[in-house]
Amino acid sequence: MLINCAAYQNGKKIADIPKPEISDYIEQPDSFVWVALRDPEPAELEEMREEFGLHELAVEDVQKGHQMPKIEEYGQTLFVVLHLLELDADATIQLGEVGIFVGPNYVLSIRNRSQINFLNVRERCEQEPHLLVHGAGFVLYALMDAVIDRYFPIIHSLEIELENIEARIFSGGSSTRESIEEIYKLKRKLMRVQHSITPLHEAVTRLHGGRVPQVCSQLQEYYRDLDDHLGRITHTIEGIRDMLNTAIQVNLSMISLSESAVTKKLAAWAALFAVPTMIAGVYGMNFEHMPELKWGLGYPSALVLMVILDIGLWLYFRRAGWLGSSDEMIKIKD
Amino acid sequence: MLINCAAYQNGKKIADIPKPEISDYIEQPDSFVWVALRDPEPAELEEMREEFGLHELAVEDVQKGHQMPKIEEYGQTLFVVLHLLELDADATIQLGEVGIFVGPNYVLSIRNRSQINFLNVRERCEQEPHLLVHGAGFVLYALMDAVIDRYFPIIHSLEIELENIEARIFSGGSSTRESIEEIYKLKRKLMRVQHSITPLHEAVTRLHGGRVPQVCSQLQEYYRDLDDHLGRITHTIEGIRDMLNTAIQVNLSMISLSESAVTKKLAAWAALFAVPTMIAGVYGMNFEHMPELKWGLGYPSALVLMVILDIGLWLYFRRAGWLGSSDEMIKIKD
Amino acid sequence: MLINCAAYQNGKKIADIPKPEISDYIEQPDSFVWVALRDPEPAELEEMREEFGLHELAVEDVQKGHQMPKIEEYGQTLFVVLHLLELDADATIQLGEVGIFVGPNYVLSIRNRSQINFLNVRERCEQEPHLLVHGAGFVLYALMDAVIDRYFPIIHSLEIELENIEARIFSGGSSTRESIEEIYKLKRKLMRVQHSITPLHEAVTRLHGGRVPQVCSQLQEYYRDLDDHLGRITHTIEGIRDMLNTAIQVNLSMISLSESAVTKKLAAWAALFAVPTMIAGVYGMNFEHMPELKWGLGYPSALVLMVILDIGLWLYFRRAGWLGSSDEMIKIKD
Amino acid sequence: MLINCAAYQNGKKIADIPKPEISDYIEQPDSFVWVALRDPEPAELEEMREEFGLHELAVEDVQKGHQMPKIEEYGQTLFVVLHLLELDADATIQLGEVGIFVGPNYVLSIRNRSQINFLNVRERCEQEPHLLVHGAGFVLYALMDAVIDRYFPIIHSLEIELENIEARIFSGGSSTRESIEEIYKLKRKLMRVQHSITPLHEAVTRLHGGRVPQVCSQLQEYYRDLDDHLGRITHTIEGIRDMLNTAIQVNLSMISLSESAVTKKLAAWAALFAVPTMIAGVYGMNFEHMPELKWGLGYPSALVLMVILDIGLWLYFRRAGWLGSSDEMIKIKD
Amino acid sequence: MLINCAAYQNGKKIADIPKPEISDYIEQPDSFVWVALRDPEPAELEEMREEFGLHELAVEDVQKGHQMPKIEEYGQTLFVVLHLLELDADATIQLGEVGIFVGPNYVLSIRNRSQINFLNVRERCEQEPHLLVHGAGFVLYALMDAVIDRYFPIIHSLEIELENIEARIFSGGSSTRESIEEIYKLKRKLMRVQHSITPLHEAVTRLHGGRVPQVCSQLQEYYRDLDDHLGRITHTIEGIRDMLNTAIQVNLSMISLSESAVTKKLAAWAALFAVPTMIAGVYGMNFEHMPELKWGLGYPSALVLMVILDIGLWLYFRRAGWLGSSDEMIKIKD
Repeated sequence: MLINCAAYQNGKKIADIPKPEISDYIEQPDSFVWVALRDPEPAELEEMREEFGLHELAVEDVQKGHQMPKIEEYGQTLFVVLHLLELDADATIQLGEVGIFVGPNYVLSIRNRSQINFLNVRERCEQEPHLLVHGAGFVLYALMDAVIDRYFPIIHSLEIELENIEARIFSGGSSTRESIEEIYKLKRKLMRVQHSITPLHEAVTRLHGGRVPQVCSQLQEYYRDLDDHLGRITHTIEGIRDMLNTAIQVNLSMISLSESAVTKKLAAWAALFAVPTMIAGVYGMNFEHMPELKWGLGYPSALVLMVILDIGLWLYFRRAGWLGSSDEMIKIKD
Repeated sequence: MLINCAAYQNGKKIADIPKPEISDYIEQPDSFVWVALRDPEPAELEEMREEFGLHELAVEDVQKGHQMPKIEEYGQTLFVVLHLLELDADATIQLGEVGIFVGPNYVLSIRNRSQINFLNVRERCEQEPHLLVHGAGFVLYALMDAVIDRYFPIIHSLEIELENIEARIFSGGSSTRESIEEIYKLKRKLMRVQHSITPLHEAVTRLHGGRVPQVCSQLQEYYRDLDDHLGRITHTIEGIRDMLNTAIQVNLSMISLSESAVTKKLAAWAALFAVPTMIAGVYGMNFEHMPELKWGLGYPSALVLMVILDIGLWLYFRRAGWLGSSDEMIKIKD
Repeated sequence: MLINCAAYQNGKKIADIPKPEISDYIEQPDSFVWVALRDPEPAELEEMREEFGLHELAVEDVQKGHQMPKIEEYGQTLFVVLHLLELDADATIQLGEVGIFVGPNYVLSIRNRSQINFLNVRERCEQEPHLLVHGAGFVLYALMDAVIDRYFPIIHSLEIELENIEARIFSGGSSTRESIEEIYKLKRKLMRVQHSITPLHEAVTRLHGGRVPQVCSQLQEYYRDLDDHLGRITHTIEGIRDMLNTAIQVNLSMISLSESAVTKKLAAWAALFAVPTMIAGVYGMNFEHMPELKWGLGYPSALVLMVILDIGLWLYFRRAGWLGSSDEMIKIKD
Repeated sequence: MLINCAAYQNGKKIADIPKPEISDYIEQPDSFVWVALRDPEPAELEEMREEFGLHELAVEDVQKGHQMPKIEEYGQTLFVVLHLLELDADATIQLGEVGIFVGPNYVLSIRNRSQINFLNVRERCEQEPHLLVHGAGFVLYALMDAVIDRYFPIIHSLEIELENIEARIFSGGSSTRESIEEIYKLKRKLMRVQHSITPLHEAVTRLHGGRVPQVCSQLQEYYRDLDDHLGRITHTIEGIRDMLNTAIQVNLSMISLSESAVTKKLAAWAALFAVPTMIAGVYGMNFEHMPELKWGLGYPSALVLMVILDIGLWLYFRRAGWLGSSDEMIKIKD
Repeated sequence: MLINCAAYQNGKKIADIPKPEISDYIEQPDSFVWVALRDPEPAELEEMREEFGLHELAVEDVQKGHQMPKIEEYGQTLFVVLHLLELDADATIQLGEVGIFVGPNYVLSIRNRSQINFLNVRERCEQEPHLLVHGAGFVLYALMDAVIDRYFPIIHSLEIELENIEARIFSGGSSTRESIEEIYKLKRKLMRVQHSITPLHEAVTRLHGGRVPQVCSQLQEYYRDLDDHLGRITHTIEGIRDMLNTAIQVNLSMISLSESAVTKKLAAWAALFAVPTMIAGVYGMNFEHMPELKWGLGYPSALVLMVILDIGLWLYFRRAGWLGSSDEMIKIKD
């Protein structure tokens, strides 16, 4: 579906144009055409391929989708694939794609499977004619900047998830099993995001510094700024990965520790039952000559002995930390 | 066994030719010979070596087999080894090899130990004379593209296996022991696939970009596309590896956790038996003066006491999560 | 807020100057202007941007803050972002930022969210006119040196924390749960510090050696010295990271070990109770012909038997190390 | 000990020569001298050093032994150190060394502490005069090829060991303790082999491709073939390492799992004993009014109750998998 | 403290000279001055700085100490920092430093906090005038060679420690807790040694091969030999690190395994007590009609039944390996 098709000259929009006139405008000096498609039909793509003279391999990539982010040069044309990441209602990450063809005097963006639109990019560009005068190269920058800016809230949501997991681990909280599952899921998400960002970062590095594609050559500082943003994201992702690995190990330690606590509690309670049982066993023996059995206070004495020994044991285990407090007992359930 | 032997000129097939005429066609300008062998006898190989003037080390590699994927230049000739991966009926990966010799005007492919054939590659090439006109270099591309395309379903099947393992781990499912074995087997498969792909990826990188072999020099975009495909595969494999490592650790945590659950259940049930046993012990003592023993309701009172205490304990353990539900008990068996 | 604004010529301060005169002094040969701002208002920043002709992207970075450390060239101007690290009262790390713009004849430092000031840097510079004669490049060095010197006590405090954790792990000490939490927190801090230092180290490497920005070209040894300091810090951080990973694993081993000790103790005590209970059970049987029951010394003999067997068991378990000493029992609580 | 000393011209052996004549033959064009020593005395080495004008540092390396594999250029001379690996009778790896000096017209090989000899290399070379005509460079290739070919069976034996360990882990087999020890030993062996191969691989990479030593310059394809072999070995070693690391973790999971199984069995059996003991306790109470005690069938009824309850429990535990089969019980012993 | 101060010409010592004459000798062609200081006062350092014209940053590094090893060029001068490692009486590693300034015609070595002296280096150099004729560059080599040679016994002692730890782990030996502590301490030592060697190795690599400092240019083979030695040390350290990591994991497996053994033993013994207790309970019931109670041989029969059942159980557990041998029981204490 065609979203937009406009011609620009010297940094200003001159007209919305119909598709067949694209080739006319492309030939004019100091002007460029900016076309935006969304989930296009094969026929639309084919039309564009002819209009702009795109390479069949690049068009095939757009058609098939599921590409890694990349920046490829086909002669004068730059072909850029970016991933569009969105958090949906239940915090899962939705993945869309945008393919951008940039020639000396045209920009063609093709968005697939995503709700993110670029209308605000067009607005921003049109408000800055002193930058838009750089032509297609600046539009590419503005589009990439808009896509990359969308990554920050995603990364931030992953940081929040990590913090929740940490809080849960150290609260000795109620559901270790869920902690483990959440750790794993966060790892999964992280991989998915990294899959979208790492290759892009590598590719953007080649848009500034040494030899760069013609179309970016006058906007070095701007493309370096993109690189810088991606660098920050990459650093943050690496940090989350590293902490997550530590969290897995720390969580295992906590599980072992709480298992140890359970065993201690088991031992302590077993002892508290075993003592009276043993004493009762002794006075249940059938020897003829057992003087205590005849005493009037024999029975209560035996009961008192049982209670005293159990209280002693109780205090001992309490001091040794084997019994824990009752709210701790709740804590260490899984 | 000779599969095919044909001569092409200006992108079109001109004739199926007998082996002895190969050298005649090789000398003609703008034409090339395309020969396909399958599991050849040493004598056949020797014949080809003489016909095309191949290097003895390369021919030895084909004969011996069990090479790593590689791309080697012998003067004007390019010698390419690719692994052919197939999933057989019981989902194990079968490994075949294809060796390809590419000279300025010939292509010789030698397939070993594999059911995968390249007839469709020949068809595709013959249907695209505008590309086939690039000669042997395009045939090499087409063959490599066909081989690499076969890797995608293999990788996908590994992704599915990982997902099955994850599902099993978090279902707290019935057979942890099998989970562990499947994790290990998946790791093994992954290593095998990586062994086939990583060296190829490294080699293909050198077929585009900087200095490239003569025969590939006009098809840069196509070889870069192969590189891109292998990059995607490599990324996916790395992702599976990483998640698999996490899965191993997470699984260990789950095992520790279920061990902890078993210990808790053991402790709870031991307490439920210990209480009545202790009370019975007390009333089994032989003291002469034990007033309860004389009571008419002594016995039922004792039984009721036992039951009440056990019900109390039951509720306490239940609330603390030490008893679990009965279907959980089934779950945590190994 | 403007902290300072002074002009220097031939290594000596010539005047404190009002902001509007900055541009006059910038144009004089062999002189430079050194301006220091703190937590500036957007308007102040805008004023500076115009006065010095700064690039809008760099100014935006200062305004937004939360940048990674970096060193960027904008034509003749160098834009440096450094993190300011401070330990506050309860040993958490506070993060501030300083942005420094360095041109051929000016230095503009903008400090944000930090108590660390650079007055002593100005003093030091003014006391060394033979170095200050190198102009803005030396001021940049002096500022960076001051910032980096502040990192050493932070790193040292992390080393101390690691040593405390180690001591606690091997003392078999009182609170394994807290050890785990401290390990995790130290890892977090380490990541935060590394996040501030690693990118800076990479950037500083490019200020000496090969092609370097004009402004640093005469002070190669000094910038190499900064690199050397950062190298030492990086090495130390890597060391702490590595030991911390080992500490996590070792701690898990210690937890498993103390769990094993608890189980042994449980087993030993269970046996000590089980023996008398079993004997009592035997003599509680109601067989008519049990000669021991009739003996006058039957009862005391049975008690003595119980005691002797328990002493024997006690010694055996003691020798096998299953009982531990009572202070060890305290130790292995969590 | 001198093994061999012969002169070759135009790819053919012309004479076995005595040591003092070496210098005469070295000076002739198109000829070279090939000398082989074994465990030489210092005096022999000194003699060779003078005869060929070797560098003292290289000779010192040969004398001292225990070098890493390496390839060093001393002016026109190439000094190569290779490790000789042999499996002895009880599958431990024996390490020998061979030092090879190669000049434009001589080859001197010095073998230390190894049974591996190079007679077959000499035979092979003499049978291929068309290759031997390349002189000392081909002899070096042939020697290195022979040494490297000996690595393959070693690597294969390590693969077999890994497979045995895997089989043992997943058989739930009889001796986990031995599994652990074998894993560790295999890791040790792997390190030892890697220590012999990795540095060699790095060094051989520099014998083909870019700038190469004079003596190898005409045999590029052959040295690349060595590189290829070493690449395959390195890949295999990396694979074993990786699987071994996984095996360690998987084995730990299996140990935890079998511990869990033991605890379950313990719990189940404890319950099977606890039930009759509790019932017996109840009927061992001394209440005066316990009607069951008077019943004629009281005793058998109680026994039947015990048996029925135990059968019920047995079936329940069986279904829950807590009891395992008796052959499994054998399995999980350590 | 001044240790030594001598002038050399054409490889021979010509005179011990007083400090003020140093500058006279430096100016003579083909001669150089070699000065050795130990733990110098700041005043002495300042004197040297003036005499040789050293850079203030390098002198500051010597004064402050606690540098990483490094090799820095200050114009014609080379400034080298090396760590001196010594094992003291109780096997801890003592760390000293030596700073060496090397100019075209002088060597100044400054040793701090170390007992290691370099008198033998001076002797060796004076005995080899054909090498000493290369001047300051050879002295630097000789000093570095002496320092690096001292690293080998340190590394060897770490290898021995690793072997002791391995032996202890697999002996199933007496003190797992100490094993863990020793593993950790060895890791610490390893880190410390690596900290001294890795940066030096990197720096030495730049003293041979490509562009090298003037002073080393004629002694390429010698500096490459140093590189080779450091390479061997680095390889060994990497090996120890790797095995140590494996040892940590293997040790954890052994701990889990012995915990499993303890649980089995606990279970087995519990059963051995539970059986007689249960039987005794049965015959302690107070049913009126229990025919066995009347039998003359009832009591001994009951005892015999208990013993037979226990012997049966004992044999069963023995066969299943749950009881272990008594020396194993000793083994698995911690």
